[in-house]
Amino acid sequence: MNQQAVSTHKEPALGFSSDNIAGASPEVLEAMVDCNTGQSAPYGGDALTARVERKLAELFERDVDVFLVPTGTTANALCLAAMTPPWGSVFCHPSSHVNNDECGAPEFYTNGAKLISVDGPSAKIDPVNLRKAANVKVGDVHVTQPSCVSITQATEVGSIYSLDEIRELGDLCRASSIGLHMDGSRFANALVSLDCTPAEMTWKAGVDALSFGATKNGVPCAEAIVLFDKKLAAEMGYRRKRAGHLFSKMRFLSAQMDAYLTDDLWLRNARQANDTARRLQDGIKDLEGVEIFGAPQANLLFCRLPAAVIEGLLAAGFVFYHDRWEPDVVRFVTSFATTTEDVDNLIANVARLAG
Amino acid sequence: MNQQAVSTHKEPALGFSSDNIAGASPEVLEAMVDCNTGQSAPYGGDALTARVERKLAELFERDVDVFLVPTGTTANALCLAAMTPPWGSVFCHPSSHVNNDECGAPEFYTNGAKLISVDGPSAKIDPVNLRKAANVKVGDVHVTQPSCVSITQATEVGSIYSLDEIRELGDLCRASSIGLHMDGSRFANALVSLDCTPAEMTWKAGVDALSFGATKNGVPCAEAIVLFDKKLAAEMGYRRKRAGHLFSKMRFLSAQMDAYLTDDLWLRNARQANDTARRLQDGIKDLEGVEIFGAPQANLLFCRLPAAVIEGLLAAGFVFYHDRWEPDVVRFVTSFATTTEDVDNLIANVARLAG
Amino acid sequence: MNQQAVSTHKEPALGFSSDNIAGASPEVLEAMVDCNTGQSAPYGGDALTARVERKLAELFERDVDVFLVPTGTTANALCLAAMTPPWGSVFCHPSSHVNNDECGAPEFYTNGAKLISVDGPSAKIDPVNLRKAANVKVGDVHVTQPSCVSITQATEVGSIYSLDEIRELGDLCRASSIGLHMDGSRFANALVSLDCTPAEMTWKAGVDALSFGATKNGVPCAEAIVLFDKKLAAEMGYRRKRAGHLFSKMRFLSAQMDAYLTDDLWLRNARQANDTARRLQDGIKDLEGVEIFGAPQANLLFCRLPAAVIEGLLAAGFVFYHDRWEPDVVRFVTSFATTTEDVDNLIANVARLAG
Amino acid sequence: MNQQAVSTHKEPALGFSSDNIAGASPEVLEAMVDCNTGQSAPYGGDALTARVERKLAELFERDVDVFLVPTGTTANALCLAAMTPPWGSVFCHPSSHVNNDECGAPEFYTNGAKLISVDGPSAKIDPVNLRKAANVKVGDVHVTQPSCVSITQATEVGSIYSLDEIRELGDLCRASSIGLHMDGSRFANALVSLDCTPAEMTWKAGVDALSFGATKNGVPCAEAIVLFDKKLAAEMGYRRKRAGHLFSKMRFLSAQMDAYLTDDLWLRNARQANDTARRLQDGIKDLEGVEIFGAPQANLLFCRLPAAVIEGLLAAGFVFYHDRWEPDVVRFVTSFATTTEDVDNLIANVARLAG
Repeated sequence: MNQQAVSTHKEPALGFSSDNIAGASPEVLEAMVDCNTGQSAPYGGDALTARVERKLAELFERDVDVFLVPTGTTANALCLAAMTPPWGSVFCHPSSHVNNDECGAPEFYTNGAKLISVDGPSAKIDPVNLRKAANVKVGDVHVTQPSCVSITQATEVGSIYSLDEIRELGDLCRASSIGLHMDGSRFANALVSLDCTPAEMTWKAGVDALSFGATKNGVPCAEAIVLFDKKLAAEMGYRRKRAGHLFSKMRFLSAQMDAYLTDDLWLRNARQANDTARRLQDGIKDLEGVEIFGAPQANLLFCRLPAAVIEGLLAAGFVFYHDRWEPDVVRFVTSFATTTEDVDNLIANVARLAG
Repeated sequence: MNQQAVSTHKEPALGFSSDNIAGASPEVLEAMVDCNTGQSAPYGGDALTARVERKLAELFERDVDVFLVPTGTTANALCLAAMTPPWGSVFCHPSSHVNNDECGAPEFYTNGAKLISVDGPSAKIDPVNLRKAANVKVGDVHVTQPSCVSITQATEVGSIYSLDEIRELGDLCRASSIGLHMDGSRFANALVSLDCTPAEMTWKAGVDALSFGATKNGVPCAEAIVLFDKKLAAEMGYRRKRAGHLFSKMRFLSAQMDAYLTDDLWLRNARQANDTARRLQDGIKDLEGVEIFGAPQANLLFCRLPAAVIEGLLAAGFVFYHDRWEPDVVRFVTSFATTTEDVDNLIANVARLAG
Repeated sequence: MNQQAVSTHKEPALGFSSDNIAGASPEVLEAMVDCNTGQSAPYGGDALTARVERKLAELFERDVDVFLVPTGTTANALCLAAMTPPWGSVFCHPSSHVNNDECGAPEFYTNGAKLISVDGPSAKIDPVNLRKAANVKVGDVHVTQPSCVSITQATEVGSIYSLDEIRELGDLCRASSIGLHMDGSRFANALVSLDCTPAEMTWKAGVDALSFGATKNGVPCAEAIVLFDKKLAAEMGYRRKRAGHLFSKMRFLSAQMDAYLTDDLWLRNARQANDTARRLQDGIKDLEGVEIFGAPQANLLFCRLPAAVIEGLLAAGFVFYHDRWEPDVVRFVTSFATTTEDVDNLIANVARLAG
Repeated sequence: MNQQAVSTHKEPALGFSSDNIAGASPEVLEAMVDCNTGQSAPYGGDALTARVERKLAELFERDVDVFLVPTGTTANALCLAAMTPPWGSVFCHPSSHVNNDECGAPEFYTNGAKLISVDGPSAKIDPVNLRKAANVKVGDVHVTQPSCVSITQATEVGSIYSLDEIRELGDLCRASSIGLHMDGSRFANALVSLDCTPAEMTWKAGVDALSFGATKNGVPCAEAIVLFDKKLAAEMGYRRKRAGHLFSKMRFLSAQMDAYLTDDLWLRNARQANDTARRLQDGIKDLEGVEIFGAPQANLLFCRLPAAVIEGLLAAGFVFYHDRWEPDVVRFVTSFATTTEDVDNLIANVARLAG
């Protein structure tokens, strides 16, 4: 029985706090059930893992090295560790997930590299600032050395680097002989928004290593490290095992990613998340006292609401982050599981309260 | 439709290389599907995770702190890191998993603690050797300091510490003010073999921290760190997050453990594994040229087979490790998924070839 | 023969780039020669080391734990490592030495703690900013946790925290249950400037751990970690040894510190450095085109000079940092070895060029 | 006035516990005093440091990269860190200093590499054992990977690898593409014993990185990392700084090494240490109840003495390690500062007590 079909009969969901509160696409769980047949080589020696690697190679239109891991923090930390010596600097936006939300995982995995904030509007690294930062005391043993750049696509505020913007950063990295990492925790959301190919958004623009996210977009616990730089791959297997992230029964991880990439599930899910976010924006933007921030391109919406509206929504049971950034500023996050009904219900409530 | 029922009609399984080649119990996958309903607080704030914590407290007949992680290597490494300063010594058996099979995960997580081999028969630490090791240069800054002991229950060769043996090590640890960790990757196999309670096999015998394994015994990817020493719990959440092991959609991890602990699935699975191993032993032990090593108490069987038998089994498609330890020495591993038919088929082939 | 007496007959020294370009006070080297008599217990078991510990206890008017190390970077990194778990945050000024000039030593020694910049005028941490920073997401496993504050006394720009300012930070630390570290690379310079007691400037104001500098102020290579918090001492010996900083022939390190603390050499040296800096300031502050920054309280002077003056000084052989911060901004550093003649010669040249 | 001349009038020294209880050669301290003239570029930019680099290049008859550090533990740990990834294995003898006496410094500096004991007689690695160890599970992500070998020359028991023995290990390393490190804490003692060139004992035999010891042999605190493999040098400067071992007033470190290498002081000191050890051996070997172990080639002598002799020596004020290895086994260590009178006095006492 189709679970999503069922869910349309349910009460509208009230949670807009994160894409992590959603469950998984039924297809993905079915794939996990389906792969549970007989014996299978452990640690990634199974056929399903090989198939995922093939699919990702096709998706990116080239040879890639793939390492599946269960969380986005892991994918990021392993990529950065492969790209940065302990005495290296990782350039990232001050509002980036690697900088703020991983309890120092990059520092742990790199053995103490330094995350250097490089600011820019809309949570995107400004290339002018990056060029400056990447040229500070190069070769001076007293300071950590420029080693890589980490950008988030889509960013933590829902903005998206254009292909030109990525290419500009990629060129800067090449010029400074440093690597470019993309935290693609919301890779699919960015991709459908830009309407480009995965290759264009990554290695063709200069990306060396990608955290290819799936968990936020419909799987229980699976992310793929996708490496475009062969040199990084040699050590990744050791790093992954040593960190406890090599699954013995890998097929259950691979099954998730395989289903995610089948029949464009990943793109359909991302479109649903983006579309509901846009629908929400359109539905509240002209209401009295509502101010939308930026031009949301993915599945996150930041806005200012009247305090009474915020209180009213909370009283009605809605769940979302507010007053974390500035007074009366609210973040709404949609996901693949957010339905039109969920969003329309939220819009209706904002409208009622904004009155 | 019941998958196990179906499997009885299949060809007998030929793999005896590891308990990692098996899939998962259908009940566990069903639980993952069932928990996929609506929104749920992320990062362990969900009801299912709370239920698992409650169940484990009941199981161990006391307050415990529980941290779910996806792999056994992680559970071990996090426990050891919480019990050992970077300048600490971890005493373990030379043949232990933490020492040999985790690519230095304990060293990585502890920031460079030293694993000190303490030998003993049957892959079990000899208390006489431990007492000696734990008293070397205590307080001397030139050497790493005794910090904890890690024992594996059941051991890597399928032997099992008796309750008395654990208590003796526990007393030694208390006397030296060092912690006692149990790698319970095959905890259930040991428990049903000893026919004691989880409390008796752990904290009542002096164990401070337990890696409570489930993956080898029927779940896709879930282990529980169970802490009996409250002091260890304070930092564990940070360590787990920082290592990338805090699942955002935790319910899918908790659902596995919840199903594993429901209706004694975990004990039934372990009994099946142990019983088939014993059946295998009984079936081949009197055959010409077969020599059984030790007294297998769990789901691993080490034996010497005539070279021709080994060749014949391989030719017949059987999969198992051989000639890794000594010439003609073979390891057979059964699991929850090993059926009587699987084992009888193996016995018949050994008999045919030995005959 | 007294070397300093001799040096007055030499050409004036032209280096004002750092207090590290100076050598050592002759008394200190004599002490190293003098301690070279017969056999002595290694690793700090000698009488000279005990005497240094006693002297520092007297100096600070209380029990202290003392660990000698050869460099300031080491003293800082060891202190921070003892005060910060790997998942901790260290609050420091953006311009601090620990943040900028140690190639990530704090991150290495702490196993990846995070240095969080807390800004404030004159290179001093603003308590308002600190209170805010120390209360971000406390207890949230997704972020590194407030663990300690590191202040530099005197600061990297030559300013000095008043006793009230230190006490205010100390009170904040107490209130947040985090430690307070003082990087006292130029401790003596600050002390003679404030004209207070070592106790007042440290533990009485809330400092838990001090990097008591000597190298910049007249010894070849010796710094003392002085711990006011007994809990930090237990592990320090292991950390120091493990980092390779436990000298086997410790007497040669202790002899330096002993001589440094004898007959107020350390205070005399600091006064000489401060006095010559002030003399330099007074000598050039009213010259055409010269702008002094801040109110230099120690042995560093930042000022803006006409470009032609900078060029002229360089042409005349003077050595100093310039144009590193802003165009035409210059840093002059004096030291214990800077003579009145050295400074007067510099003043004369600035006057001639500004002229 | 010559200090050594003076010491001949003193009472004979009673300490034979370590070469660390000796002070420094007067020439070395004089050099430290002599270099204290005027200003000098910090952090190794001085002329004296350049001269030391030149001298070591001449000594080793080739280009070398030199990094001065204050302790042998540091030299070893930095070398091993440059040669070993965190998931690497370092093969060393079970009785080696890196394994037993550095409180895990190699593990700290390498970020958790694994020291694997490879046994052999006389504290020397047996090439047969090494070949076996270096071929275990190569390329298997579950185990740490062979990365380098560390040998001690002279060993911790005073034995010495012959040139042939080093070459055999060097060839094995080449064949396995792993590095060869030499802990030369007593390099000079070995060299004068073998009567070969520094080049022959190192890079010509396959050594890639050397901890060139000086502290035990007459300097206060100076060791040189000497790299024959250029690839290792690129990162060494960062590692040294990051560990707090880059001296600001480097001239005082370089002066020690410069004096040590001047007029063969280092060789003369080593000969004195070796000669007095041999004299001691010859003086007691035929006494009643005395059993010499091995054939001491450097400055350490292990022997069995009657319990009454040990007691008598201790009562007479002699200091040495005993009963640490086996009952009644004693270690005597001589040094550059040990005089003929010191040794003859010890011999006389043993004779008296044994007699």
